[in-house]
Amino acid sequence: MKRREIVKVLGLGVAAAGLAACTEEKKTVAADCAQPAASAAPEKPETIEWKMVTTWPKNFPGLGTGANDLADLIDKMSGGRIKVKVYGAKELVGALEIFDAVSRGTAEMGHGAAYYWKGKTRAAQFFAAVPFGLTAQEMNSWLYHGGGMELWEEVYAEFGLIPGAAGNTGVQMGGWFNREINGVEDLKGLKMRMPGLGGEVLKRAGGTPVLLPGGEIFTSLQSGAIDATEWVGPYNDLAFGLYKAAKYYYYPGWHEPGTTLECFINKEAFEKLPADLQVIVRNALRVANQDMLADFTAKNNEALQQLVNEHGVELRQFPDDVLKQIRALSDEVVAEEAAKDPMSQKVFESFVKFREQAIKWHAVSEQSYLNARTL
Amino acid sequence: MKRREIVKVLGLGVAAAGLAACTEEKKTVAADCAQPAASAAPEKPETIEWKMVTTWPKNFPGLGTGANDLADLIDKMSGGRIKVKVYGAKELVGALEIFDAVSRGTAEMGHGAAYYWKGKTRAAQFFAAVPFGLTAQEMNSWLYHGGGMELWEEVYAEFGLIPGAAGNTGVQMGGWFNREINGVEDLKGLKMRMPGLGGEVLKRAGGTPVLLPGGEIFTSLQSGAIDATEWVGPYNDLAFGLYKAAKYYYYPGWHEPGTTLECFINKEAFEKLPADLQVIVRNALRVANQDMLADFTAKNNEALQQLVNEHGVELRQFPDDVLKQIRALSDEVVAEEAAKDPMSQKVFESFVKFREQAIKWHAVSEQSYLNARTL
Repeated sequence: MKRREIVKVLGLGVAAAGLAACTEEKKTVAADCAQPAASAAPEKPETIEWKMVTTWPKNFPGLGTGANDLADLIDKMSGGRIKVKVYGAKELVGALEIFDAVSRGTAEMGHGAAYYWKGKTRAAQFFAAVPFGLTAQEMNSWLYHGGGMELWEEVYAEFGLIPGAAGNTGVQMGGWFNREINGVEDLKGLKMRMPGLGGEVLKRAGGTPVLLPGGEIFTSLQSGAIDATEWVGPYNDLAFGLYKAAKYYYYPGWHEPGTTLECFINKEAFEKLPADLQVIVRNALRVANQDMLADFTAKNNEALQQLVNEHGVELRQFPDDVLKQIRALSDEVVAEEAAKDPMSQKVFESFVKFREQAIKWHAVSEQSYLNARTL
Repeated sequence: MKRREIVKVLGLGVAAAGLAACTEEKKTVAADCAQPAASAAPEKPETIEWKMVTTWPKNFPGLGTGANDLADLIDKMSGGRIKVKVYGAKELVGALEIFDAVSRGTAEMGHGAAYYWKGKTRAAQFFAAVPFGLTAQEMNSWLYHGGGMELWEEVYAEFGLIPGAAGNTGVQMGGWFNREINGVEDLKGLKMRMPGLGGEVLKRAGGTPVLLPGGEIFTSLQSGAIDATEWVGPYNDLAFGLYKAAKYYYYPGWHEPGTTLECFINKEAFEKLPADLQVIVRNALRVANQDMLADFTAKNNEALQQLVNEHGVELRQFPDDVLKQIRALSDEVVAEEAAKDPMSQKVFESFVKFREQAIKWHAVSEQSYLNARTL
């Protein structure tokens, strides 16, 4: 008989209540007393039922499916002791209401990206994506071994939430353009769907960042209401059919170089879990974090070939001069944003210090190697 | 009372034996019968005791400590149901005997790198490091979402082993040289400590690969017995003091661009585990895989600065022309090696196809972004 089956039969829900009686009356037959009755009417197994609310449409490729995989993994690692039911955006609460919903305990887990919560706590942005910031590998290193996770926990603590990285898209694409970008002056007046800090940088370059939900991007681009849009990368962009509405596919995605997805947990609910389940939940997030990047990498590999070979998409690299100028603007925007409150400044300083070292190390490792491979 | 404490009190070791009695005698008080006696003399909990043999000296930085972390994680995620005792090289069996030891069940787990087993199965090399092969991010994507893991399982199945990736060093350094490498002709006659396929490439370039265990590298380099050596990266190289024995620190590590460490498991022992513990063990490996890379990245960041700023180490990039020629030789060597048996050829074809796509995708994402950041 497997341990988890025994535990199911046991019905931990009544264990505490029954303990005294058993202890008092059956001290001499403690061993027998401790055994479950296999053929007795099965007690209802104690299953912890959790809800995970997400910012993604249910089953959204990569992101929504990543949330599903995470829930499934927690179920399997816990031997069914925790069942996490995943809700797509609007199924239980709206996409941008998940932070509050988990904070107040309406759901136990939330799956999104930290930059959505900048209105609540500006410092959150550093845990999702920063223009000219860290790559996926660097983010993980900063979070797990560079002090980043401790800062993230500090930022979310006041909302009664425990944060965790739960996926990464890798370097995203620069976006779909119906205008050539030959110099930074071509960004002037450019109406581009670009949220967050990237949008701020675009504004500083003279462009007009436009906020649009995913579902409205295609028609806005096709109608000319916007001149350009960023979305994610080949895999998601192909699914949206964006290649049908734009001429050029620019790279690299300087504005989101390693976007970290998150899963935050209601602290009170988490702390009620037995120690082993706490470890299981935390580490399920870490598996999900790695797995989503591996998935995106494989899917982007294939989707890029499809876009180029089957749909004749024209890839364009932003000119060096444009990248240099955008980088300078990005550094300004990010530093100014950080200076707006002490917590943001604290996170920014840790982030920037880590980036400085990572740039030097990756110049002689990842970057140098990737270049050597394509000489 | 926490669930795992209840389970400990229960003493699963006697659960099966005691089951019948409890069922027969106490049907009417099934609920009471099912409760543990908290203050009874604690039964010995059923703990599965496993051994992990490793190719590393006990607690070796990054690699040995990674094995320790993995064992600890399995313990915690399983609520103490599996205890894995880690043995350094030679403590139970020699470093290169671990594959056989786990295969025959002397130990349940082995922690090493797959290229050590090329004498047993040539195809294993593709799961560790291939000259001009995949980076860490690409390896994970190939393994988890590109068919690599299924091939690895096929290769190890005949030895009764289940493989798993359990860490990654990231791109390594090219090595420590007492001779300048200005052209490929400078490799002629070069005596360099370089194992595996990298060594074969060096030989084809006219050099002399030398096999030396870690402990003999420093003195051999200092005495001039060798002209150069590769080891790992700044973190491990600093610990070995190699900067004291060589003039130049070359990059990138074309021969090991994302070395995957492995943890293989005795299949029979694994299959005896209950389903949830199987999932826990497999996913503990995945956490370890990601965590070691994050750890190495952070440690290499710091160690590189120390080497350059405190020890005045001179960093040198291999000239483009050298890299191009070594790449051509690498491709020859790897293809010839693969052609020696059908399984190697099968793995090689999957690997090379994945690399071809990854090069194209990373050219417009990781590579382009890293370059944009240092323009």
